[in-house]
Amino acid sequence: MKKEKPSSGKLKIIPLGGLEQIGMNITAFEYDDTIVIVDCGLSFPSDDMLGIDLVIPDVTYLKNNIDKVKGFVITHGHEDHIGALPYILKEINIPLYATKLTMGLIDHKLEEHDLKNQIKRKIVKFGQSINLGQLRVEFIRTNHSIVDAAALAIYSPAGIVVHTGDFKVDYTPVFGDAIDLQRFAEIGHKGVLALLCDSTNAERPGFTPSERTLGKIFDTIFSEHRSNRLIIATFASNVDRVQQIINSAYRFERKVVLEGRSMVNIIETAQALGYVNIPPNTLIPIEQMKNYPEEKTCIITTGSQGESMAALSRMAADIHRMISIGPRDTIIFSSNPIPGNEKAVTKVINELAMKGADVIFQDAHVSGHACQEEIKLIYSLVKPKYAIPVHGEFKHLKAQAKLAMDLGMEKDKIFILSSGDILELDENEAKVTGKVPTGAIFVDGIGVGDVGNIVLRDRQQLSEEGMMTVVLALDQATGELMAGPDIVSRGFVYVRESEELITEATELMYEVVEDLLSRGITDWGKIKSSIKESLSDYVWKKTKRRPMIIPIIQEV
Amino acid sequence: MKKEKPSSGKLKIIPLGGLEQIGMNITAFEYDDTIVIVDCGLSFPSDDMLGIDLVIPDVTYLKNNIDKVKGFVITHGHEDHIGALPYILKEINIPLYATKLTMGLIDHKLEEHDLKNQIKRKIVKFGQSINLGQLRVEFIRTNHSIVDAAALAIYSPAGIVVHTGDFKVDYTPVFGDAIDLQRFAEIGHKGVLALLCDSTNAERPGFTPSERTLGKIFDTIFSEHRSNRLIIATFASNVDRVQQIINSAYRFERKVVLEGRSMVNIIETAQALGYVNIPPNTLIPIEQMKNYPEEKTCIITTGSQGESMAALSRMAADIHRMISIGPRDTIIFSSNPIPGNEKAVTKVINELAMKGADVIFQDAHVSGHACQEEIKLIYSLVKPKYAIPVHGEFKHLKAQAKLAMDLGMEKDKIFILSSGDILELDENEAKVTGKVPTGAIFVDGIGVGDVGNIVLRDRQQLSEEGMMTVVLALDQATGELMAGPDIVSRGFVYVRESEELITEATELMYEVVEDLLSRGITDWGKIKSSIKESLSDYVWKKTKRRPMIIPIIQEV
Repeated sequence: MKKEKPSSGKLKIIPLGGLEQIGMNITAFEYDDTIVIVDCGLSFPSDDMLGIDLVIPDVTYLKNNIDKVKGFVITHGHEDHIGALPYILKEINIPLYATKLTMGLIDHKLEEHDLKNQIKRKIVKFGQSINLGQLRVEFIRTNHSIVDAAALAIYSPAGIVVHTGDFKVDYTPVFGDAIDLQRFAEIGHKGVLALLCDSTNAERPGFTPSERTLGKIFDTIFSEHRSNRLIIATFASNVDRVQQIINSAYRFERKVVLEGRSMVNIIETAQALGYVNIPPNTLIPIEQMKNYPEEKTCIITTGSQGESMAALSRMAADIHRMISIGPRDTIIFSSNPIPGNEKAVTKVINELAMKGADVIFQDAHVSGHACQEEIKLIYSLVKPKYAIPVHGEFKHLKAQAKLAMDLGMEKDKIFILSSGDILELDENEAKVTGKVPTGAIFVDGIGVGDVGNIVLRDRQQLSEEGMMTVVLALDQATGELMAGPDIVSRGFVYVRESEELITEATELMYEVVEDLLSRGITDWGKIKSSIKESLSDYVWKKTKRRPMIIPIIQEV
Repeated sequence: MKKEKPSSGKLKIIPLGGLEQIGMNITAFEYDDTIVIVDCGLSFPSDDMLGIDLVIPDVTYLKNNIDKVKGFVITHGHEDHIGALPYILKEINIPLYATKLTMGLIDHKLEEHDLKNQIKRKIVKFGQSINLGQLRVEFIRTNHSIVDAAALAIYSPAGIVVHTGDFKVDYTPVFGDAIDLQRFAEIGHKGVLALLCDSTNAERPGFTPSERTLGKIFDTIFSEHRSNRLIIATFASNVDRVQQIINSAYRFERKVVLEGRSMVNIIETAQALGYVNIPPNTLIPIEQMKNYPEEKTCIITTGSQGESMAALSRMAADIHRMISIGPRDTIIFSSNPIPGNEKAVTKVINELAMKGADVIFQDAHVSGHACQEEIKLIYSLVKPKYAIPVHGEFKHLKAQAKLAMDLGMEKDKIFILSSGDILELDENEAKVTGKVPTGAIFVDGIGVGDVGNIVLRDRQQLSEEGMMTVVLALDQATGELMAGPDIVSRGFVYVRESEELITEATELMYEVVEDLLSRGITDWGKIKSSIKESLSDYVWKKTKRRPMIIPIIQEV
């Protein structure tokens, strides 16, 4: 990679994930010799990424410019903003800046990866600024479906950029204060070069209701289901939600069990840092549940997205070690299915209903993201020169762009950036001037990046058609066939039912190999390609399938 | 299977698919020496059925009672009601009864499978009855998202059963007459033993709007997008929908292209049978589209569900042979995503939007299924003694059961049947008395039933972890190692990046085999299990993955 040019006096904004890799929220802000990175999220594999556990961003650009990179500033503690940190920090060791709960959740991850003592970390308060080279970053309080979420004001010699992070406007949050709209206004008054604003709900009209509205709804649910056990599934990271469920449980004199690894972890972290307030004698370990009448217990569990190994899914499938579902259970989904999870969620609901449980799936959730009126409010306070819709699929970004235009912004001042785009901007102009390398790195087990597209293509073929191995041994000296060809198949057909097919195929392979050898052809490449071709043809004719064919020749 | 007992004077209703296999609508009605089967649908594979093309019902029960089976009566021409016919008719050759368009669509399938001349087929008119042994079946006109849909009144000595098929109440259908509510009332007045009623929309309050309401909506869309090419995606089988789009196109002087194999096939069949009326000079072949200005054309296409190989998905992915998408296209989804398809549909929308197209995704669809008020209407006309909610997931069936109870039916008169349940009923009682074998048979390529759970489990492992083959050759006489062990992997890691791992693993295999042989252990089973165990441990330690390990030993 060629050396960067000296400063042009412009700020560069470079998303290293995002539109092409939804979930991988990571954006570089570069001015002269300074790069600051906002967030470092991971995404979950799409259906075609067989066997992949996680997907993390390619940070080649940062590695190539490591001298400039001053730090990660993190907006909030969701996986799509912090999940890739342990992997990326192994490659580039740079300081981290975040609010208290966000850092608590990051610390937990770093401990799991044995990294905590190697990374410089600093907790930042709302209103506080940190100086990072030529950039200064101020943390501004917002509201979201996790507490301690921050927007960022990034001060550069080229102008101020405001990044909302993920946010909503909650005038009556459950914990802490409402979003600091005054500060957005003040900074707006100073003059803002660009606004990067959350687009998740940009297609939805109106205003997202306050998290607090759910308090009454939970009270109603508890009051209407006094004779049943209550099982409430929600996002582990929504600490305020869990707090409100615990409040209702306490008011209705129920004991609370937290179930699911991430539920237990996150609430423990939040409790240790003072973000949840659990009345004494309310929380009980799952093992003690049997000592209380069912109608005096309430389980708060993970699995609201139908994730196959989450606690609620295990209950639904009757493989949970402690909890079995029956007609005396009322199950509440305090969540909406994230797009793509609808089918999995429906499966869990049906399984629960078939066990006789009463399943409630409405009214017990509010979004953590700003709807159209809130987005317009932020634009109206910040009054940016340029708009860069972020966080969402293309259609969401486009919906925000439309809102910005409704507010009077010109189309050429609005930028929908692809991953890697270098947007250079100052008071006079903004334009995309180039592209840096980006991409998705697959994590499979503890392997990072050792599974690529060839391996995935193989897995795809194996998954749909199975495979056939053809093994034979040739004499080193004479080239004579000493053993085989033998055929071993997996994932192709149930062999006992297709014995004839395999027998015939084996005979065919014998003929093919003997024919080649008798004609003096001993080149292994030629033998292998003849095996592949003739077996593939034969199998296609007989079954209309194309299993992977793997010829193996040994020399004895 | 033991011989059936002589008649008990009761009617048996036996779903052979359904709740456990959504989509496989097939129900046996049995009285004495007579079995009549209603519908014969297929279902599409769920995500865990890797490589499977289709899923069809297990009809062992029918084969074992083939002397009794008098015929298939078919309610309408959707895949989940007719799709398994070609496969099942190869196993049991019995007569088919259906209305004209339904039979036209079945004929097309039978031709593809070279079966048409071997099966006795009879077209039935609405109001007509057919005598099948001790049962008589009357076809009653209904409305649905495909024309010529029928409900059935099944007359048995034990009483009359009404089966709605899939239906809605459309007082102003686009083609043909409204549902024959008078006939439902008349039969109800005679006294109905049981009602099997469509549950798909049983959770939705109100009344499904008429298909005809879309006519005006299409006119509005055509009038508001006069300068763009229009591409409208819908279900090929919704002939009325296609008719209305063609009507609007004709009014706004656009030429119409039909695109997608099933769109072309079904509309051709419908046109040949007089179910669509296309004005002359309106339809043009796709090849001629280039001769007309874009704003004078309209493409009606398959792919509204985001199916990866459907025409619209190919356009979105830029791999369609004739059509490329750009800013001058307006794309209308005249459909709702079927649960499970949301993510695929969203992907297509985003791809289209990124090419600059305007995508409209609302207001251009109505359901083909009855909502709560329509279901209540049918119950109120038919006044059945017993209710058997059908067609839907468990939660939908339960919602209909609740509606029936709201109307005053007692809980013990309502039956939610599992696949295979034998419900025996007459005027005095109804109860589940046993179970017949049922199941899902996988179709993969031209293989029917040769892929079972073992093969699927193998495909699952292969898809997520890949595989490693360990090959070695032993001397027949001495038991000495003559070649290998060699390791060949696929779908595991990208070998060039993990050369060291494979080299080390190969060395380990050599040590393991030599150690066994040196200790005089020559049993192949023991050698293979040692190979599996030690390689599996090694790979897990190094990568936290569990590829399938396949040891192959040859004797030379």
